[in-house]
Amino acid sequence: MEVFFLGTGAGMPAKLRNVTSIALKLLEERGAIWLFDCGEATQHQILHTSIKPRRIEKIFITHLHGDHIYGLPGLLSSRSFQGGESEVVLYGPKGIKEFVDISLSVSQTYLKYPLKIVEIKEGIIFEDEEFTVEARLLEHGIPSYGFRVSEKDRPGTLLADKLMEAGVKPGPLYKKIKNGEAVKLENGNVIEPGAFLGPSQKGRIITILGDTRICEAAAYLAQEADLLVHEATFSNGEEKLAYDYFHSTTVQAAQVAKEAGVKKLCLTHISSRYDRTDWNHLEEEARKIFQNTVISEDFKEISLPICKGN
Amino acid sequence: MEVFFLGTGAGMPAKLRNVTSIALKLLEERGAIWLFDCGEATQHQILHTSIKPRRIEKIFITHLHGDHIYGLPGLLSSRSFQGGESEVVLYGPKGIKEFVDISLSVSQTYLKYPLKIVEIKEGIIFEDEEFTVEARLLEHGIPSYGFRVSEKDRPGTLLADKLMEAGVKPGPLYKKIKNGEAVKLENGNVIEPGAFLGPSQKGRIITILGDTRICEAAAYLAQEADLLVHEATFSNGEEKLAYDYFHSTTVQAAQVAKEAGVKKLCLTHISSRYDRTDWNHLEEEARKIFQNTVISEDFKEISLPICKGN
Ligand SMILES: [Zn+2]
Ligand SMILES: [Zn+2]
Repeated sequence: MEVFFLGTGAGMPAKLRNVTSIALKLLEERGAIWLFDCGEATQHQILHTSIKPRRIEKIFITHLHGDHIYGLPGLLSSRSFQGGESEVVLYGPKGIKEFVDISLSVSQTYLKYPLKIVEIKEGIIFEDEEFTVEARLLEHGIPSYGFRVSEKDRPGTLLADKLMEAGVKPGPLYKKIKNGEAVKLENGNVIEPGAFLGPSQKGRIITILGDTRICEAAAYLAQEADLLVHEATFSNGEEKLAYDYFHSTTVQAAQVAKEAGVKKLCLTHISSRYDRTDWNHLEEEARKIFQNTVISEDFKEISLPICKGN
Repeated sequence: MEVFFLGTGAGMPAKLRNVTSIALKLLEERGAIWLFDCGEATQHQILHTSIKPRRIEKIFITHLHGDHIYGLPGLLSSRSFQGGESEVVLYGPKGIKEFVDISLSVSQTYLKYPLKIVEIKEGIIFEDEEFTVEARLLEHGIPSYGFRVSEKDRPGTLLADKLMEAGVKPGPLYKKIKNGEAVKLENGNVIEPGAFLGPSQKGRIITILGDTRICEAAAYLAQEADLLVHEATFSNGEEKLAYDYFHSTTVQAAQVAKEAGVKKLCLTHISSRYDRTDWNHLEEEARKIFQNTVISEDFKEISLPICKGN
């Protein structure tokens, strides 16, 4: 599981940072890529990566500002010509369906795969055996969502050799033990599952937020997350500007990270007023409040290692 | 007057060629840029040129396929933040207005300049003191236009010194002479304008076509043009493919150039199946039919020098 930054700028494309798009790579977990936002030229950025568009399974749109959605029609169209045959589900605020439908119909684009568009509200917007995605509204002139992606905990793998030694034969009992139940054998012995299971795997939590002022919903979604991706359009000292334009500063992002007790913070959506030489400084501002902070760059990847517990 | 290629590929963006956009630079003529088509990431391409988005005065859309229009919402939005205050007029086939209106309204984008959208039919779609633009339908699955941009002839400049010598004083007579009229002086002398005018300037003609099969309308629009920009999606020998997908080959483009008696042909909309090493060959194919052919590349510029006549 990795978070890969395709675009990390604010408002307009610039030479150093493209407009927003973030790929959550779930290749080992489900052979899939989930995309968060899709600014113009996201498909162009992907051309310079190992990401296969046909692997894109879900796209989550935080809000409808152009720098977060204008790359959708092109990316969806091109996927048809890049081997994309599996369904894509697109989640976003009310209005996303009209934008995509009109863009595709005006250009007479017929996708070779099913596209499902879900206009979301707050709450659990997706859940299956492996993952849950929860959405909450942040604070940004127009409806802007944050997403909390929670991987479910996985029980440890069965220690088959040890079970054989204890006289348990493969069969229905294995499933019970795997699920953490104690089982009684025909000979009267009781098998406690703990001793026959490898370490369990704690689900990881990734929180990716849309544009926002510092707000409570951000901390709620980020609670104990392994990684929080928070916008930091402006540097410390620009709180007024941030407030007026519904954005955050580096230090405000760090305050959310601290309050939520996350493991790591990544700052993104960086204004093009800050040059390459300023980026270290922005990172340092946040680190004074929350030490484990990094600043995003286009094509940067953050790995989220598995935590083994028991 | 220069033609600057912002994107020269076909269908999808590729590393070597972006999707279509062509800038006609009329900086000396009217301090303006006219854009022909606006594929995704046209604004990104512009970041790497000297083109100022606020100078864009008109945008002509040949047809509504995504690779020719998906860059419009972003380019129009960003122009608001790049000093663009003067009106932009956008010409395109029916449907272009819905696409742009919905894209801007869904993203709650409010332009700081007037945007006028004209859904065109065949005929003269623009005319002023300096230029005429004529549109004709080509042959391409969906309505696809070609544009003939004709600069008007300009009379030569008045040779003031020579007029003074002949005893003509600055005043209303100058205007008559400039307009090519013979005038009679108070002393009875008749001034024939020819002797008192510098060389006239013949208007240039640039023909830029949308995607098309080889067709009569292409040759009609290109008649005697200084430059014909014709698509050549495929190489010679692929006429069947070209026909089936409503495109042209290099040699077909050259045939149109020859039939129309143009001065120069530029091939564009080159399929990404052709690699950098193939481009010379594509050019050569066309040159066998029409010698003065060049193949476009992203960021290539073709100058159109003034022809002095009399
Ligand atoms: Zn934004
Ligand atoms: Zn095309």
